[in-house]
Amino acid sequence: MEYPSKLLEEIVNEISKLPGIGRRTALRLVLHLLRQPETQSVSLSESILKFRKEIKYCQVCHNISDHDVCKICSDTRRNHQLVCVVEDVRDVMAIENTGEYRGVYHVLGGKISPIEGIGPADLSIKELIDRIDEKKVEEVIFALSPTIDGDTTNFYLFNKISVCKTSPKISTIARGISVGEELEYTDEITLARSIMNRVPFEKSIKHG
Amino acid sequence: MEYPSKLLEEIVNEISKLPGIGRRTALRLVLHLLRQPETQSVSLSESILKFRKEIKYCQVCHNISDHDVCKICSDTRRNHQLVCVVEDVRDVMAIENTGEYRGVYHVLGGKISPIEGIGPADLSIKELIDRIDEKKVEEVIFALSPTIDGDTTNFYLFNKISVCKTSPKISTIARGISVGEELEYTDEITLARSIMNRVPFEKSIKHG
Repeated sequence: MEYPSKLLEEIVNEISKLPGIGRRTALRLVLHLLRQPETQSVSLSESILKFRKEIKYCQVCHNISDHDVCKICSDTRRNHQLVCVVEDVRDVMAIENTGEYRGVYHVLGGKISPIEGIGPADLSIKELIDRIDEKKVEEVIFALSPTIDGDTTNFYLFNKISVCKTSPKISTIARGISVGEELEYTDEITLARSIMNRVPFEKSIKHG
Repeated sequence: MEYPSKLLEEIVNEISKLPGIGRRTALRLVLHLLRQPETQSVSLSESILKFRKEIKYCQVCHNISDHDVCKICSDTRRNHQLVCVVEDVRDVMAIENTGEYRGVYHVLGGKISPIEGIGPADLSIKELIDRIDEKKVEEVIFALSPTIDGDTTNFYLFNKISVCKTSPKISTIARGISVGEELEYTDEITLARSIMNRVPFEKSIKHG
């Protein structure tokens, strides 16, 4: 399709570089911005620039943070010997939202993915190993999503952490049937795992 | 959900103001920008600002344009006495894409919508009426989408154009069954209209 204006084509090109946004959606967003007061475009533009230039990461857990050490890592009431390894800030937010976890986090910043060209050096893995030794971490929980990349990363981390001087316990979050989910619609792998990794009944009703 | 950073919360707020983009999607887009080189965020930010500040409209048809008079309106090979009234630039692009239309356009910039608070004065309707009289337009084609707002706008325009000195012919684009569509799955209103507005067979195979 031919655009009636170079300026329009440029901005549609830029916006459609974002994942999940095609040229049609990009055009719809641009036309929306045109109907809104100019101030909305200005503040959108400024906040993108400001965010990208001023973004900081916690020096301990590598989560996005406004300070050198994030709120979670500087909370003395939390258990700093229990570290949950996650992919990015969304996972931290999801787990925090449950209100059940009182340990701390380590944000890898992605998963090992040979296809996307992401290797161990692109993630904060070295920092995790150093942290385990320095802080005498007692347990590391793997909470990466159960994909091939997630499993690859888990195995890599397992091998690295196994040789740590402090030899912490290593666990992964439980895979099983979601609360409220119907047994008959669960996929076979999840169902098989949920039977293999069954838990004592008393434990399952602890928070019920 | 609580964000670990004010800066992150700000940009998620800004992006989720866009239509069809919720806070989850906004966060996903932000994390994508973080993984890309800073230059991508800079050029996205700059092109939003540049577009909103430098955007121009054709003085004749009110379409988005880089020049005072757009390419279509300055094309002398087109029929300037045939004006197709559309809502926005997307409709112009869609009709141009067919390669069948040799008239010109008039971009209203929206539809009359009492619910959204858009009245005739918010659209380029006065400009259309002036243009019809000045340019001695012979036919006006309504090509707004067939919604309540579209029909309202059509009726308003019909009344306004009927009293024009040049009294041009007024038509609307044909509503009917899409080419390739199955008769049995067509909604009743479209099917009824397509029977009422049947066309001579010879005419239907003109471009076939």
